[in-house]
Amino acid sequence: MQDACEAREVLGIVGDKWALLVVRMLKDGPRRFTELKRSIDGISQRMLTATLRDLERDGIVIRTVVEVMPPHVSYELTTMGRTLREATAPLLEWSIEHLPHIATARAEYDDR
Amino acid sequence: MQDACEAREVLGIVGDKWALLVVRMLKDGPRRFTELKRSIDGISQRMLTATLRDLERDGIVIRTVVEVMPPHVSYELTTMGRTLREATAPLLEWSIEHLPHIATARAEYDDR
Repeated sequence: MQDACEAREVLGIVGDKWALLVVRMLKDGPRRFTELKRSIDGISQRMLTATLRDLERDGIVIRTVVEVMPPHVSYELTTMGRTLREATAPLLEWSIEHLPHIATARAEYDDR
Repeated sequence: MQDACEAREVLGIVGDKWALLVVRMLKDGPRRFTELKRSIDGISQRMLTATLRDLERDGIVIRTVVEVMPPHVSYELTTMGRTLREATAPLLEWSIEHLPHIATARAEYDDR
């Protein structure tokens, strides 16, 4: 039970839908802020900034300022981040696979 | 990408630290509300009620009123809920395993 209590704090970061989606979007290599913003439907600039900062602080993402013209900021998974990506993959796959069942369950619940 | 956008809505529920912990606590069978409240450190009565209602609405948890004396309410995973538990296990294990690394990364980040 102690482990679960400690894990709760970590889950506050990694068990967050935006964090899960950002980690997923970085699975194939570095991405610019603007690329992430565009590829994650519905995320605000402020939320993406906060999510990336939390992930950087937790050692899951590395932020690099790329000094080419025009200069830009790039994000990529750390070694630990790549293990997180592997751990989150089943949950994302589950979500995609069960979406229709959940939609049905919700409709039935709301009809009661 | 479309799948990811749809999954986002589901992740809003299942990619929530409290939902992940409730699902974990139900892995060994039905639990009463009061048992869940006690076993999930830091969850408020209101948050547990809301989390259980969302999970019930999504077809992940079944709520049963047990008509013994004293009557009480019991929660258990549905068949779909058990598959969710399996999908979330790697993320919970990852969180527990990497907690020390994350604590180190945070301390370094905050010292910059």
